[in-house]
Amino acid sequence: MAEPSARRELGQGMATDIAEQPEVFARLLEPAPADAIAAIAARVIEQRPRHVVFTARGTSDHAALYGAYLSEIRLGIPAGLASPSAVTVYGARPDLAGALVIGVSQSGGSADLVEVVRAARDTGALTLAITNNPHSALAEAAELHIDVAAGHERAVAATKTYTAELLALLLLVESVRAGGRLPGDERSALAELPNLAAGLLDDATPAEIAGRYRFAARVVTTGRGYAYPTAREAALKLMETSYLPALAFSGADLLHGPLAMTAPDVPVLAVVGDGPAGAAMREVVTKLDERRADVVAIGPSAIDGVRLRIATPSVDERYAPLLDILPLQRLAMHLALARGEDPDAPRGLNKVTITR
Amino acid sequence: MAEPSARRELGQGMATDIAEQPEVFARLLEPAPADAIAAIAARVIEQRPRHVVFTARGTSDHAALYGAYLSEIRLGIPAGLASPSAVTVYGARPDLAGALVIGVSQSGGSADLVEVVRAARDTGALTLAITNNPHSALAEAAELHIDVAAGHERAVAATKTYTAELLALLLLVESVRAGGRLPGDERSALAELPNLAAGLLDDATPAEIAGRYRFAARVVTTGRGYAYPTAREAALKLMETSYLPALAFSGADLLHGPLAMTAPDVPVLAVVGDGPAGAAMREVVTKLDERRADVVAIGPSAIDGVRLRIATPSVDERYAPLLDILPLQRLAMHLALARGEDPDAPRGLNKVTITR
Repeated sequence: MAEPSARRELGQGMATDIAEQPEVFARLLEPAPADAIAAIAARVIEQRPRHVVFTARGTSDHAALYGAYLSEIRLGIPAGLASPSAVTVYGARPDLAGALVIGVSQSGGSADLVEVVRAARDTGALTLAITNNPHSALAEAAELHIDVAAGHERAVAATKTYTAELLALLLLVESVRAGGRLPGDERSALAELPNLAAGLLDDATPAEIAGRYRFAARVVTTGRGYAYPTAREAALKLMETSYLPALAFSGADLLHGPLAMTAPDVPVLAVVGDGPAGAAMREVVTKLDERRADVVAIGPSAIDGVRLRIATPSVDERYAPLLDILPLQRLAMHLALARGEDPDAPRGLNKVTITR
Repeated sequence: MAEPSARRELGQGMATDIAEQPEVFARLLEPAPADAIAAIAARVIEQRPRHVVFTARGTSDHAALYGAYLSEIRLGIPAGLASPSAVTVYGARPDLAGALVIGVSQSGGSADLVEVVRAARDTGALTLAITNNPHSALAEAAELHIDVAAGHERAVAATKTYTAELLALLLLVESVRAGGRLPGDERSALAELPNLAAGLLDDATPAEIAGRYRFAARVVTTGRGYAYPTAREAALKLMETSYLPALAFSGADLLHGPLAMTAPDVPVLAVVGDGPAGAAMREVVTKLDERRADVVAIGPSAIDGVRLRIATPSVDERYAPLLDILPLQRLAMHLALARGEDPDAPRGLNKVTITR
């Protein structure tokens, strides 16, 4: 019921996908998926990987980035994102013995990721696929598989499969950290997610901001730490659905050069949480304010000098990516509609992209 | 003498920096730097790292990405780019024993990279700094240091320090591959670089294309494999100097969603080499052509359906990034001048950026 105006016409599929996120969270938090993830966590603990290598593309690449932060911060295991083309284009076979290689893909159908995971498995890596399709080639290529069980995604632009991937990664990492099974306090905190997500779906602010930015020529998104994947994913959604050039920068990189691009006519979507990355982002927002950028802060707290805000729940920064993206998905959808585009079926795109 | 029109006025510093690249290459290829790099290669071989972790920001991040491809393809050692904020914002201390951690920074002054390298060294990583300042904090924090010896860089936008970082990484990786010292055939091939680079500085095409794109509202850059860092760096130069929104995508990612953003009024700078990544890029260029994008191919060969081309020498794809970026640096400079900006001193930017 969250997007009544969009339901019957353009964007109906994307609106429905977005609105299903609370139930997707609830489903992944049930005992059966939690048990399946605990079993995989036990295998990871047994293997004691020296490092984690993610391989993914597009939206799932942003989920992988979130997973890399979790791995380094919560497990102390170095993590990075692999470039599939080293393997698929140049035939490289990096020695991944001792590594955990995680392929993330909603369809599980990308031939290049399948090849990377197979090559990794051949060299002795522990391999895990995280997909929304347990019968996919990627799920079959990897030794281990987590089904994010988000159900059929209607729109081409991924929304509920993205947050389901985030939650699956969070459950896995916290289970590994706890020695195999999610601790009670973590479980209680996560049990709030479906309600918190549902609360965000009723907020009218994203639609209002879409009206404001209907005539924008470009958008900048920014965040740090756990919020950086949110900035990246928000930019991709805006590009996929509204064809609006959206430039995502970590708050730190923005100060290194692209700050010069901000100006009073450039909206900046800044994800500013309540934790350490949010504190670091406040300096960035101050600089943006000096340059008179039109800043929208996405986060739980008001920020001096920033008039526009999309309020999100105050949660630990590692949970925030599962919530903060929801109003940004809705902003992308409303902006596409305001600009006369169909967010369900972007021009010239298919759901499964074949790349090598 | 390469950029006479720019010498006396705006952009003089950047023009001089760009024009010095042939001599910067020649200097790094002399026996003394080669010996220093061979000694570092010997330490790497002795340590046998399980994986390589790069840490860098901005332009140097693109050099690091090139280094990651080299490591995987030429050495079979998995490589990735670290997010400094896991360490600097969240206080993570990933266990990097058995890893080679390489910090890349022209100034060597970024406090966050220094902290990442120190933390890595504390956990037992072999650490290497690649900088243009042997007395910098980063050079001192790392156990090993390569001085790219590019000389003082006049403009804020990095050009000659970028290609010097690329060459240093190439020399290091090929020396490791060869067991400690660069093989003769590699040395002969690299000896051509200064002349090939000098040849590119006389080409009038970048200035002509700058005239064509003076009124563009945005630009897309794309490449695959070794050419992907070139696409990323070209986009950053355009943003830093012309404030033109420039979106860089790997050829594969472009097909996953952002392809919808291309249109007849959007210039696409596509780096299409002579090797395997270039072959994969031809499919991407065909799709761009179907969408009637205004494609400029940067590469050694003509491509069906693409009228605009910046011709670059036909070299192995792993050498091409050292050359292909030169006309793109010049394009960024000429475009900034055409748009009335000063490429030497972008608005609101400093040469050394302090981030944490």
